[in-house]
Amino acid sequence: MPRNDHSDYVVDTTASKHAALWPVAVSAVRLTDGFWAPRIKSNHETTLAEQFAQCESTGRIDNFRIASGRKTGEFQGAVFNDSDVYKWLEAAAWSLAGSSATGDGPVAAQMDAVIAEIAAAQQPDGYLNTYFMGERANQRYVNFKDWHELYCYGHLFQAAIAHYRVTGGGALLDVAVKAADHLCRTFGPAEDGKRPAVPGHEEVEMALFELGRLTKNQNYARLAEYFINARGHGLIGGGAYHQDHKPVRDMDRMIGHAVRAVYLNCGVADMAMETGDPALVVALERMWNNMTQKQLYVSGGIGSRHEGEAFGADFELPNARAYTETCAAIASVMWNWRMLLLTGEQRFADLLEHTLYNGVLSGLALDGNSYFYVNPLADDGRHRRQAWFGCACCPPNVARMIASLPGYFYSVSHNTLWVHLYAQGAAEVQLPDGRIVKITQTTSYPWDGRIHLQIDAAGPLDVMLRIPAWCADGGGDEKPALQVAGRPVSGTLTPGAYAKIGRVWTSGDTVAIQLPMPARRIVCHPFVAENRNCVALMRGPLLYCLEAADNPGFDLRNLTLPDAGAIEARPSSLLNGVVTLHGHGLVHEVKADGPLYQNNASANRSRQSAVAFTAIPYYAWANRQPGPMQVWLART
Amino acid sequence: MPRNDHSDYVVDTTASKHAALWPVAVSAVRLTDGFWAPRIKSNHETTLAEQFAQCESTGRIDNFRIASGRKTGEFQGAVFNDSDVYKWLEAAAWSLAGSSATGDGPVAAQMDAVIAEIAAAQQPDGYLNTYFMGERANQRYVNFKDWHELYCYGHLFQAAIAHYRVTGGGALLDVAVKAADHLCRTFGPAEDGKRPAVPGHEEVEMALFELGRLTKNQNYARLAEYFINARGHGLIGGGAYHQDHKPVRDMDRMIGHAVRAVYLNCGVADMAMETGDPALVVALERMWNNMTQKQLYVSGGIGSRHEGEAFGADFELPNARAYTETCAAIASVMWNWRMLLLTGEQRFADLLEHTLYNGVLSGLALDGNSYFYVNPLADDGRHRRQAWFGCACCPPNVARMIASLPGYFYSVSHNTLWVHLYAQGAAEVQLPDGRIVKITQTTSYPWDGRIHLQIDAAGPLDVMLRIPAWCADGGGDEKPALQVAGRPVSGTLTPGAYAKIGRVWTSGDTVAIQLPMPARRIVCHPFVAENRNCVALMRGPLLYCLEAADNPGFDLRNLTLPDAGAIEARPSSLLNGVVTLHGHGLVHEVKADGPLYQNNASANRSRQSAVAFTAIPYYAWANRQPGPMQVWLART
Repeated sequence: MPRNDHSDYVVDTTASKHAALWPVAVSAVRLTDGFWAPRIKSNHETTLAEQFAQCESTGRIDNFRIASGRKTGEFQGAVFNDSDVYKWLEAAAWSLAGSSATGDGPVAAQMDAVIAEIAAAQQPDGYLNTYFMGERANQRYVNFKDWHELYCYGHLFQAAIAHYRVTGGGALLDVAVKAADHLCRTFGPAEDGKRPAVPGHEEVEMALFELGRLTKNQNYARLAEYFINARGHGLIGGGAYHQDHKPVRDMDRMIGHAVRAVYLNCGVADMAMETGDPALVVALERMWNNMTQKQLYVSGGIGSRHEGEAFGADFELPNARAYTETCAAIASVMWNWRMLLLTGEQRFADLLEHTLYNGVLSGLALDGNSYFYVNPLADDGRHRRQAWFGCACCPPNVARMIASLPGYFYSVSHNTLWVHLYAQGAAEVQLPDGRIVKITQTTSYPWDGRIHLQIDAAGPLDVMLRIPAWCADGGGDEKPALQVAGRPVSGTLTPGAYAKIGRVWTSGDTVAIQLPMPARRIVCHPFVAENRNCVALMRGPLLYCLEAADNPGFDLRNLTLPDAGAIEARPSSLLNGVVTLHGHGLVHEVKADGPLYQNNASANRSRQSAVAFTAIPYYAWANRQPGPMQVWLART
Repeated sequence: MPRNDHSDYVVDTTASKHAALWPVAVSAVRLTDGFWAPRIKSNHETTLAEQFAQCESTGRIDNFRIASGRKTGEFQGAVFNDSDVYKWLEAAAWSLAGSSATGDGPVAAQMDAVIAEIAAAQQPDGYLNTYFMGERANQRYVNFKDWHELYCYGHLFQAAIAHYRVTGGGALLDVAVKAADHLCRTFGPAEDGKRPAVPGHEEVEMALFELGRLTKNQNYARLAEYFINARGHGLIGGGAYHQDHKPVRDMDRMIGHAVRAVYLNCGVADMAMETGDPALVVALERMWNNMTQKQLYVSGGIGSRHEGEAFGADFELPNARAYTETCAAIASVMWNWRMLLLTGEQRFADLLEHTLYNGVLSGLALDGNSYFYVNPLADDGRHRRQAWFGCACCPPNVARMIASLPGYFYSVSHNTLWVHLYAQGAAEVQLPDGRIVKITQTTSYPWDGRIHLQIDAAGPLDVMLRIPAWCADGGGDEKPALQVAGRPVSGTLTPGAYAKIGRVWTSGDTVAIQLPMPARRIVCHPFVAENRNCVALMRGPLLYCLEAADNPGFDLRNLTLPDAGAIEARPSSLLNGVVTLHGHGLVHEVKADGPLYQNNASANRSRQSAVAFTAIPYYAWANRQPGPMQVWLART
């Protein structure tokens, strides 16, 4: 069913005047690795099927049937439930783009059926929200702050864009365009005779920019710009929770509901790519620096507070009590992707990779069938993934992220191919000048840092290879290295910057990258109170944790890791095959029932004994028997 | 205006069959010290006056006038606003009990006027809640879980009891009895033809027990017992937030909304004193152990979570993000008082004192005119006391606590006088056998540990003197010591246990207590993640903190305290006269803008330099210019 013109871009910057990079389509990239390819397959076969069943059984699709009069009954669920169906559709569409290897299965037919229900529910004026029907029709556009009408439109647009780009079918795009035209007629500055409004939950901004890129209708970008510029003037109460506390160009830190804040920044980055407004870029830069220097978990997760699912104070990063919603990590990938497209700067690709492998992936069980909404960095064993949620934003968000992942691997720019992510597979990439470059990756990344690339290109071409910042210093002597056509590249590679290989390529030319992957001890800024004198373990892009399943002999909270001890990486068959880390630590025998406070002068000193420990990748925790888990470990 | 029979007990256990201790009246104790007496005076003259003005200006008293038809208008504020007026009345009554030194001022007249408004608003059937009037009358007793009708009755009863005990006037007691009889007619087991109900916010249970003690009407205790026993069977949804998750006798940890949980336990302790039910005592003991071993801040504050103003997981005690509502600390004083009356065990008096001086007192500004609702143990300087709150539970709760404080100093039992708290002043205590004992304390406690007591008693009498657990080990050689009539008492005193002095007393006999008060370094159980490798400073019953006002030269977060350095205590004129602590530490020059995560192998080691520091009592922070504050300090 997917069409084959490779124009199914996640974000289409090909006509964005101020974007540094152009995209490569989802369907142009075929992953055949042992890490992502099985997840993409399981996403297509298991996750989408189960989520469709959940959308049916919880009335989410019935809500459309009831709205159109095809079925009688009452609306079920929360005011934003339409968006879950749209996100499922978007995930299904991206998944079809990569489904030639696995076959479409029932997804295409389910997609068509759901789209028909949605189209039938749309009102003649373009309005579409199944909650505000019947006696609630008079509540339409009453509360922009708390109700999610504009948010739902955003997901409708993104689903329609994905569906059109992947299949070429216009059934959902027609609905989206009709709805978007309705929004353009309705909302805008009062001086234009329109109704001022600001979305209480951002999302529609980036969706409108993308719909404009697809349809070439400039009204959509204008409306998105209006929504962004209207923010911060009190239209929805002036609260930081909704990012209405100050104008976007004045914002200097990440604040309020995390998913909203980052979705907003996705739209602002889109606006910067379209307009080049430097004040937007400066504000985005300030916010990104605040996030990465003061509000980011070592997992890439963001949004530390349970209250309001929100960013907290600077350095407020509790571990067991981390909120770090899966959707917020996904939003961060989306924002970093747009920052990368805007600037071509590697730090955004580095954070994208880091967030993807850790903060996003922990949201999904290995079997593709249950989810974390909240992703703590320490737990007593009671936090378990669930098959669905009353507020089910995360499951279909994970599904659309995994399904669209091939679209995040490469970019192009003038005479240049950019390689952002590494995994075995092949891609057929069209350069801006129309040339086709084939690139084949052979590697067992992320378990091994050796990547073999074959580049089939004719003529001069710059290839930009991401040399991850994480290989800056493993503590050993090994440095990243590069060979082109069998010859070592002279000069030093700079971790954290793309290595540029400019040459006239001959078909079949090879590039060998070697990224050293020793286990690394990560320390945290001492202003993060819980992590003082602690260490976290990483290897390559992966964050590790200790889980009781592998360490039954001691309480994880009692373990101390001497700075000097060796940590060995070993391939294992655990958890669908991961590299585990092994070392020795000291266990201080402290009981939970001891006194909470003691005089230091008379405090009992606990005995300590040496133990061996095993660490697993953080994303894979809570896939076996329940038990405590901990990322940060005390160091001597 | 106060009557002079010294029967104004905070909790009257004189007829409670299973209470170990009998009370001493508020008016029987006169404090003349430099610590509490000025606060009691300021409470009477400033706090009560300002709170009365707030109750008027926010419509809290008008709500009664509107309910009675004496005024037209709409109810203002939250569903529980009546309770603030009742708490003000209770505070005013206790304050009058101790006002002979200062004069009544306008309080007595204000009290009479408010009582008249309340009486006029009561419905003929006894119902009284100014929110559920007019068109909302049909919502009475609809939602026990979230609306606070039964809670408000509880505060009405407590106000009426205090008013009657202090003044002898029955105007408010008549209202309370009429309302309580209405509750007894209305609520109870279905098999008695009554309506089953459980209060969503506990409070009425302890109030009903006390009303029963005052009026000798056994129906009130029966209703309180019904409310306690009905809990945990899902009548209000079965949630832990409302302590409806399991029956009281099965409860094993503190959970849910902190004030509700502890108010419940006050009622349960009252029930244990009346019934002797051992299952209640066992459950209380389990919960107290959980609270003190796993959920208690070093300030005595409780309830760590902002979400739901609630207890958290065991060892979840963040400092900057502590919730530790002032009301929860007050509730803890009330619960510990009842546990002490029930058992006579000193650990409850120790925690009562500790909570009073630290967790409660931090809720009140030195000028008696602004309040903390939330009491963090670290702050960036933005948390400041407020003159009032939309949800104003804390201010009048502080006022009634301070006003009734003299009633917490002493107890009696058979032939025994118990001394729980130390402060300069005098008391006239009636023993169960009718003898009057005069006791005079001369001391500058809590700044100095030397207390001189004069006991004017005739005949044999045991005097139980609290030897605080905090003087168990100051790290030095000094031990607590006792002299009676000029002669050292032989044998070792046991900190944490009452010292019993049994003798035949001669009028004018003296007791000299010496409690060593070196500065103490307190360490925390290592499972509290933020406090690992940290130290807090205490001296006597007081917790100390560092505030930027005294330490302008460095960022508090960069300070490390070597274990070995001396800490010197010095009297100062700061903050109305406090003893300050002084020592030296090391400052590590870490900037907030550094990287959040670094590879340990390549992390920059910060330079360090020696600094002098000054610490002030925690209760006194945020009374000068805004700036960071920190209780827990890194240690080497």
